[in-house]
Amino acid sequence: MSELLSNIIEMIRPLDREAMAQAEARQEQLTKPQGSLGRLEELSVKLAGIQGKPIPEIKHKAIITMAGDHGVVAEGVSLWPQEVTAQMVYNFLRGGAAINVLGRQIGARVIVVDMGVAADLAPDARLLSRKVGYGTGNIARGPAMTAEEAVKAVEAGIEIVSSEVARGLDIVGTGDMGIGNTTPSSAICAVMTGKEGAEVTGRGTGVTGKQLAHKREVVAKALAVNRPDLRQPLDVLAKVGGFEIGGLAGVMLAAAAYRIPVAIDGFISGAAALIATAMAPALREFLIAGHVSAEAGHRVLLRHLGLKPLLDLEMRLGEGTGAALGIFLAETAARVLAEMPTFAEAGVSEKNEVGKWDS
Amino acid sequence: MSELLSNIIEMIRPLDREAMAQAEARQEQLTKPQGSLGRLEELSVKLAGIQGKPIPEIKHKAIITMAGDHGVVAEGVSLWPQEVTAQMVYNFLRGGAAINVLGRQIGARVIVVDMGVAADLAPDARLLSRKVGYGTGNIARGPAMTAEEAVKAVEAGIEIVSSEVARGLDIVGTGDMGIGNTTPSSAICAVMTGKEGAEVTGRGTGVTGKQLAHKREVVAKALAVNRPDLRQPLDVLAKVGGFEIGGLAGVMLAAAAYRIPVAIDGFISGAAALIATAMAPALREFLIAGHVSAEAGHRVLLRHLGLKPLLDLEMRLGEGTGAALGIFLAETAARVLAEMPTFAEAGVSEKNEVGKWDS
Repeated sequence: MSELLSNIIEMIRPLDREAMAQAEARQEQLTKPQGSLGRLEELSVKLAGIQGKPIPEIKHKAIITMAGDHGVVAEGVSLWPQEVTAQMVYNFLRGGAAINVLGRQIGARVIVVDMGVAADLAPDARLLSRKVGYGTGNIARGPAMTAEEAVKAVEAGIEIVSSEVARGLDIVGTGDMGIGNTTPSSAICAVMTGKEGAEVTGRGTGVTGKQLAHKREVVAKALAVNRPDLRQPLDVLAKVGGFEIGGLAGVMLAAAAYRIPVAIDGFISGAAALIATAMAPALREFLIAGHVSAEAGHRVLLRHLGLKPLLDLEMRLGEGTGAALGIFLAETAARVLAEMPTFAEAGVSEKNEVGKWDS
Repeated sequence: MSELLSNIIEMIRPLDREAMAQAEARQEQLTKPQGSLGRLEELSVKLAGIQGKPIPEIKHKAIITMAGDHGVVAEGVSLWPQEVTAQMVYNFLRGGAAINVLGRQIGARVIVVDMGVAADLAPDARLLSRKVGYGTGNIARGPAMTAEEAVKAVEAGIEIVSSEVARGLDIVGTGDMGIGNTTPSSAICAVMTGKEGAEVTGRGTGVTGKQLAHKREVVAKALAVNRPDLRQPLDVLAKVGGFEIGGLAGVMLAAAAYRIPVAIDGFISGAAALIATAMAPALREFLIAGHVSAEAGHRVLLRHLGLKPLLDLEMRLGEGTGAALGIFLAETAARVLAEMPTFAEAGVSEKNEVGKWDS
């Protein structure tokens, strides 16, 4: 493990229980029945613990969408041509993709990163180029990347967050783009959760019947050929991961180190979270599960991480779209805590006993 | 039934299937795997059908929060003093309540209406006074209101929407404030869904054990004393309803007549929706269930209405807070459809067969 990596991991501290207790006490004094905003109240308390402030603040928002290609597409695991990864990066840069719309809707900047697209992308000031390689190796035949590349990918994520912090960053969302990337994510999920590959290898939209059976065989083969060791998360990343997955793990590690909440997206971000939390278990508390994806393994993965998703809208797009909705809810939760007066401030009578407006 | 009421009901037409088909066709051409935005895609198609436009537009947003008092509080069904209804109206006007924060967060105006608070409220330019009475009668002993008052309440809701349409209104959310108002809502829910009163009478936060049993007895008594007739929704409203509940039913009827989507909130808005849809069954398709509340009867009620809630955040505040989150998701859904390019426009390759980026 590199010095940068071990320093960042060393910086991750538990949540600030004192700030959480203060946030919770304030929630109970606001002009609404106690607990009546349900999970938004819990979320505000979590944000207080992460930021270490009794009244957390969410103003500067960013979604980091990382793109990479996957050698395993040679096995025919995806119905989409590999060139779509690069084409979608251009679509992100033009502002036309779903994540751009959602970024505008929630007032977040979208940071697009080439972590390992299998093509030379046209230079663009809006594109961060952190290319570790031109797509990973085919995990059905050998490792995805070398141990050095795995470290390089994670470090790229760390460095991007470090520089974004200087621009102002109160919450970060993770997103991905990469044709074929549910296959390595399924492999990671199987290793890290101890489930059978088949159980956590999903259909997406298109893969059914024989194609799904084939995809499951490819995941099983990747695990058999590479024998990743779950006690060594960087080894798992190198053997069956992806460049964007490593980058997102780095984003999570750095965000936790800087006490910035991380809204994670769907299955690919979840695979990155499995790697990152295995490297730094304390990181888990800094994660907010934006939504549960329609991809089969995502629910298993979130349960393993002990995270309850905020939304279940049957989305399965990636890019950070589910994370964006989670960021909106986090900002809402923080604003309620910051902007509502207490009963005393508002001159509103309190209940006679623990109660509800209209119970 | 008054002329205004029958005219408005007459105006409600089915959704525009042609606009929906066009919206659906466009969704399939946008640069994302088909169906990958799940319920946001469905929502965009529904909005197209409601507004009668292939690309629906959500810019002008309003939440109408109606307040009223309830004579049944004399039975001790609520732990909160009745004066809180008026105090919370002042809190709304000062911008301090949860709904004000959520309104600002989603960029919606919040319209506060006195439908029947049991006090003379200080005049305020920001308050719409449509007071039908100083609180309803005690439904455990007799009717909530006269038949004329029921019509007056519904008409107030219709008139408010009519004047808001002139200010620009692309979507409306419904909200309520009224100490004691889960009790009439439970009575309405029992009548309209055919469930036992006890099954749809919830705990809120505070009512447990003996108090909950007492509240259930009060609901049963209200039904036995008043014998509301489910085939006559205005009779149900008059006998076991509330002024704000009638007003919200009017909001829904008028919105549907003007082809404006309605994000409904929790249990009280749901009771209003039961009344309104019984008066005009075609209205049902204009409703969007923002969330499912923690209040027991809400799930039953939504199932009866055939509405699947967008969110389940264990909220149970009312005021329109759940509706506000629903409006945000509706706006998001509409923006995706409006702002994303098609594959052809963006120069992105399409899948080989029905598929997903990374399946």
